[in-house]
Amino acid sequence: MTKIEMTEEIIIAKKELGLSWEDIASKVDISPVFLTSACLGMNSLLKDQAKKVCKVLKLGKEVAITLQEFPHKNWEKTIPTDPVVYRFYEIVGVYGDTIKELIGEKFGDGIMSAIDFSMDIDKEENPKGDRVVITMNGKFLPYKSW
Amino acid sequence: MTKIEMTEEIIIAKKELGLSWEDIASKVDISPVFLTSACLGMNSLLKDQAKKVCKVLKLGKEVAITLQEFPHKNWEKTIPTDPVVYRFYEIVGVYGDTIKELIGEKFGDGIMSAIDFSMDIDKEENPKGDRVVITMNGKFLPYKSW
Amino acid sequence: MTKIEMTEEIIIAKKELGLSWEDIASKVDISPVFLTSACLGMNSLLKDQAKKVCKVLKLGKEVAITLQEFPHKNWEKTIPTDPVVYRFYEIVGVYGDTIKELIGEKFGDGIMSAIDFSMDIDKEENPKGDRVVITMNGKFLPYKSW
Amino acid sequence: MTKIEMTEEIIIAKKELGLSWEDIASKVDISPVFLTSACLGMNSLLKDQAKKVCKVLKLGKEVAITLQEFPHKNWEKTIPTDPVVYRFYEIVGVYGDTIKELIGEKFGDGIMSAIDFSMDIDKEENPKGDRVVITMNGKFLPYKSW
Amino acid sequence: MTKIEMTEEIIIAKKELGLSWEDIASKVDISPVFLTSACLGMNSLLKDQAKKVCKVLKLGKEVAITLQEFPHKNWEKTIPTDPVVYRFYEIVGVYGDTIKELIGEKFGDGIMSAIDFSMDIDKEENPKGDRVVITMNGKFLPYKSW
Amino acid sequence: MTKIEMTEEIIIAKKELGLSWEDIASKVDISPVFLTSACLGMNSLLKDQAKKVCKVLKLGKEVAITLQEFPHKNWEKTIPTDPVVYRFYEIVGVYGDTIKELIGEKFGDGIMSAIDFSMDIDKEENPKGDRVVITMNGKFLPYKSW
Amino acid sequence: MTKIEMTEEIIIAKKELGLSWEDIASKVDISPVFLTSACLGMNSLLKDQAKKVCKVLKLGKEVAITLQEFPHKNWEKTIPTDPVVYRFYEIVGVYGDTIKELIGEKFGDGIMSAIDFSMDIDKEENPKGDRVVITMNGKFLPYKSW
Amino acid sequence: MTKIEMTEEIIIAKKELGLSWEDIASKVDISPVFLTSACLGMNSLLKDQAKKVCKVLKLGKEVAITLQEFPHKNWEKTIPTDPVVYRFYEIVGVYGDTIKELIGEKFGDGIMSAIDFSMDIDKEENPKGDRVVITMNGKFLPYKSW
Amino acid sequence: MTKIEMTEEIIIAKKELGLSWEDIASKVDISPVFLTSACLGMNSLLKDQAKKVCKVLKLGKEVAITLQEFPHKNWEKTIPTDPVVYRFYEIVGVYGDTIKELIGEKFGDGIMSAIDFSMDIDKEENPKGDRVVITMNGKFLPYKSW
Amino acid sequence: MTKIEMTEEIIIAKKELGLSWEDIASKVDISPVFLTSACLGMNSLLKDQAKKVCKVLKLGKEVAITLQEFPHKNWEKTIPTDPVVYRFYEIVGVYGDTIKELIGEKFGDGIMSAIDFSMDIDKEENPKGDRVVITMNGKFLPYKSW
Repeated sequence: MTKIEMTEEIIIAKKELGLSWEDIASKVDISPVFLTSACLGMNSLLKDQAKKVCKVLKLGKEVAITLQEFPHKNWEKTIPTDPVVYRFYEIVGVYGDTIKELIGEKFGDGIMSAIDFSMDIDKEENPKGDRVVITMNGKFLPYKSW
Repeated sequence: MTKIEMTEEIIIAKKELGLSWEDIASKVDISPVFLTSACLGMNSLLKDQAKKVCKVLKLGKEVAITLQEFPHKNWEKTIPTDPVVYRFYEIVGVYGDTIKELIGEKFGDGIMSAIDFSMDIDKEENPKGDRVVITMNGKFLPYKSW
Repeated sequence: MTKIEMTEEIIIAKKELGLSWEDIASKVDISPVFLTSACLGMNSLLKDQAKKVCKVLKLGKEVAITLQEFPHKNWEKTIPTDPVVYRFYEIVGVYGDTIKELIGEKFGDGIMSAIDFSMDIDKEENPKGDRVVITMNGKFLPYKSW
Repeated sequence: MTKIEMTEEIIIAKKELGLSWEDIASKVDISPVFLTSACLGMNSLLKDQAKKVCKVLKLGKEVAITLQEFPHKNWEKTIPTDPVVYRFYEIVGVYGDTIKELIGEKFGDGIMSAIDFSMDIDKEENPKGDRVVITMNGKFLPYKSW
Repeated sequence: MTKIEMTEEIIIAKKELGLSWEDIASKVDISPVFLTSACLGMNSLLKDQAKKVCKVLKLGKEVAITLQEFPHKNWEKTIPTDPVVYRFYEIVGVYGDTIKELIGEKFGDGIMSAIDFSMDIDKEENPKGDRVVITMNGKFLPYKSW
Repeated sequence: MTKIEMTEEIIIAKKELGLSWEDIASKVDISPVFLTSACLGMNSLLKDQAKKVCKVLKLGKEVAITLQEFPHKNWEKTIPTDPVVYRFYEIVGVYGDTIKELIGEKFGDGIMSAIDFSMDIDKEENPKGDRVVITMNGKFLPYKSW
Repeated sequence: MTKIEMTEEIIIAKKELGLSWEDIASKVDISPVFLTSACLGMNSLLKDQAKKVCKVLKLGKEVAITLQEFPHKNWEKTIPTDPVVYRFYEIVGVYGDTIKELIGEKFGDGIMSAIDFSMDIDKEENPKGDRVVITMNGKFLPYKSW
Repeated sequence: MTKIEMTEEIIIAKKELGLSWEDIASKVDISPVFLTSACLGMNSLLKDQAKKVCKVLKLGKEVAITLQEFPHKNWEKTIPTDPVVYRFYEIVGVYGDTIKELIGEKFGDGIMSAIDFSMDIDKEENPKGDRVVITMNGKFLPYKSW
Repeated sequence: MTKIEMTEEIIIAKKELGLSWEDIASKVDISPVFLTSACLGMNSLLKDQAKKVCKVLKLGKEVAITLQEFPHKNWEKTIPTDPVVYRFYEIVGVYGDTIKELIGEKFGDGIMSAIDFSMDIDKEENPKGDRVVITMNGKFLPYKSW
Repeated sequence: MTKIEMTEEIIIAKKELGLSWEDIASKVDISPVFLTSACLGMNSLLKDQAKKVCKVLKLGKEVAITLQEFPHKNWEKTIPTDPVVYRFYEIVGVYGDTIKELIGEKFGDGIMSAIDFSMDIDKEENPKGDRVVITMNGKFLPYKSW
């Protein structure tokens, strides 16, 4: 079973059971972002987590095994076209050097890790229109001479 | 005066005065992220804000005028090479579809605006290594039929 | 059922029934542009709209469900090759900076939204050759400091 | 004098005189879109028009000559990065095939000319936020066998 | 039936009947270039023309219908690799600016239409080696201010 | 003197003397297309031809020498953006395989040379709008086994 | 039968019979380079040659017909990745201008034909390590004014 | 002194002295291909060779030093546009897999080195038109397991 | 059997038998890196090695034959997206010129071969977090004039 | 002073003093690879290290300041062309998936850091030709759910 077949089975089961990603995540007791990314084939789950996902979605053993495999993180489009994703690409283009300046100023020469990393997506209700709030939290990794 | 010449003058003045972006931002009373992005030529300031920046940095009228001009937001590299910026590009690639799924689930069909938008960059102290915390806050814009 | 399979079924049914996009749109009571874009998989319909489309085209429940799904807006070609579409790409290249100047002049620093947006396509009869008239209407979104 | 030098001189003069593109256009008696595109080096003016522009902006003969030259219409970025311009690129990607379908349905096999073409940009006041209205008007050119 | 399936059926029938493109074109009474381009899926035929092609090639109704559909003109390779086609790409690169200069000089600012357009391909016999003669004929479209 | 400097000098001289490319070509007694391409730096002239060009344009010896140098034929844009040149790129995309089929049918397996090659550009007067007529004439080169 | 299917059949037959490309070439009496390129779908054979190949490889009539068809010469990768092929791409990059200089010096302004062309690949035994010797032989084609 | 400045000085001196690359090479006693590539900045010379080149061309010490520096071998164009160089790129595309097959057959799994490598360019006189003969000679490097 | 089918069979067998690449490599008595690369279709094995692999994995003769075939080394992505592989691409970008400088300083003008080459991957235990140690060993190949 | 100007001054001083990168590194007491990368503008030095470099090279204060600045790590070429650097790009392409498999097998799902990272370049003398030995040492960073 490939990661793509796994994702298809998960999405069909999820629709049939009328569950949201947040429902599944709260039953497995991990963050909705991590759970969704694993189900879309972009992260791997631990054995226990994978089993719980399959129990919630009433899926077989093969899905559980495939959820534990280490994924190849591939994306087709160098520049995303979907407007939801493109806006984040645009933010990286517009604010990338600003982020670099401010990380340098606060932490020294180094980067924010994208591996030792977590992300949350929240809804902020607002009478002028609700707002999406995304929080990224990554370990600072300093450059060191040797 | 081009935006590039403006940025060069600002950076030289900032170094000579030993000021950080956060120092300047607190004196102008806007967010460090927005202030830095405007000084790097990626946003425009209001007249008052621009004047304050120039007063803080002891820079002339031309810099203040150029800070108010509406910038062309250009970035050279389709895929950024600097590791600080690339890690954010990677996050968009790995988590882009996850973000789309969860915004869809929480808000319906639509996007997070990158224009009606703000960002903060914070330092979370941690004995295992400090962490970079980035918070993005953008208005949800729904697709509507007509 | 994928969006692509949905589009194929719709196009076959449309041909067999000898209906135009405008016919279908007037029966569903939405704009022909929005209706066509949803049937081509580039927008989602509300439940009622989707049901009406399927009633008009004598299509099953699965098409109606797929019409309601939030699409991934993907286009294969960075630069379109079909002459109809390329001419619009050319217009963006030739007049893009002009549009930016005039929006800036009339509205201030900001953009025209492509999400809170509508478009109409009309025919202007003309003895020297009929003319295509396209009207785009998008909300102005101002940049704001924070 | 190159078109780029011409544009620089025009923009400096325009700023010093405090004129908008619409001001200049109304004095030369052509559309603001066409006038702006010619001043940005993307179209050529007739002799009389070019002279009037230079009179309004108090510019010399060389600018008038250069405004009459037939431009090479070049744009650097295959995919525009500035958010104002990118949104139009996105519209072409999302609605390109829809436009092709509806032109085909209304006119037959053919294209909208981007040469025998005009465009207007208007402001629609709206209590929920003003709106940008762009009208494109191009001659339909049918494909014909030979 | 897609245009690709249509082309495959036509090519098989043409081989079996031992007909050349010129044979078919003369029976349908249109130019060999236009006939070939329509059979390769790059142009559409009128009803009568399509029926005649199918009669000559002993092909069914579906091919005739597909020949009348308005094609999406797509080519895979930005830069063609086949030497026959590449040489024409090279000619455009080497002589493109020359053509622009001479059209400008003879006609004024404008373009040669690729839609209101015809092409012929002839053989010029020559003792030093036969020569290919290609004649393109397109309407001049002037740029006009508005 | 580089080819670019040569072209600049030629264009300035041509403007000052009010000569067209056709005027110069007829005095040098070569085709306007070849003459123009050599002056734009895309072909080299023989000594006599180069001297005549410089005599007609009242230019010095260095221009004559540079006109004789073998050029590096470079074009910046993989896909041309100027509408005049793009239309020819589009013709290659739309009709490339058609040309290949018909050359194959008339001549056998081989190509039309782009080196042993000539081109003419003519104006066909037409009450419905004048037409550009371009004739390309290149030697057929057959593939041969060895 | 496509060229790709043809190549697959030839390679399977060649393996089963334990023949090398050189064996086949010597029986068909053409050069191994040309024979191999035709079997890989990059050149066409004459009727007699095609029949001999099929006799040697015990393959049917369809392979013989397909070997005679004029191929579309396509390669997927703009820059080859396989190390054997990449090294030749590198040689073109490193020595391309050198080749141009020396052809210009020996022959005048012109090119080496890649159509009226042959190539041989030989093995030079050498105690320090055997060497690959590749000889290319192409007709010089001069540029000529017209 | 950069390699580019070095090349410019060499080419000017070479023209003034009326020397060919072959003349210089024979006086320095290395191959014309290697000599030319070093003078174009794509290879480095030994001290003695560099001094001889400068003596022949009456150039100063700085050129001699720069000729000895190890070059960065860069070429701007992924796909060359100049017809002389493109034809070699085309040969790599058309015959690359053929070369791989025949090297594999004659030598085993491995490559022809582009470093332990030499090339010669010769003229073969021929009444039907002279021919360019290029001979490449590179060490075979086998893949080995470890 | 293609290399891709071969890899799939090997990976399924490996999972079922619960073997690691290191297990297989130690039984075949070659390096884990080479063994893995051959099983992924990027290198070829000798007859004996291929047979042993198939014996260990209980796979048939066809896998053994395919393991011996000379592979086409292709990778889809010009810039890898998977974070594991991208980090090495980044290292090449950041340290490439440094490597060139130091090889030049220690060895003279030349390269490290990627063919006469071996690599090892080791684990260095470390209380602050284990470390990956990669050792590359390639023959120095000097450039030589001829 | 930009990083590029800094590198130029360092290289000139290094040549004049006849020092190698290894000489400088041993005097500053850091690794030659890190020292070279900092001097080429790809890493930053600590104050003390920067001062020592300038003392060794007899360079002024500005170079020392620039050496301490946090660099933007940019490389021009997506695919390097210089053969020294390309071979490493090729190694990443050929062995990237192998490295991913073996890191996964030895460490679990995660990456080798390119930030918490060191590299050494050594010479292994060998009668059959000296060998380049490159050792990379990077911290393993595991993926963790949250």
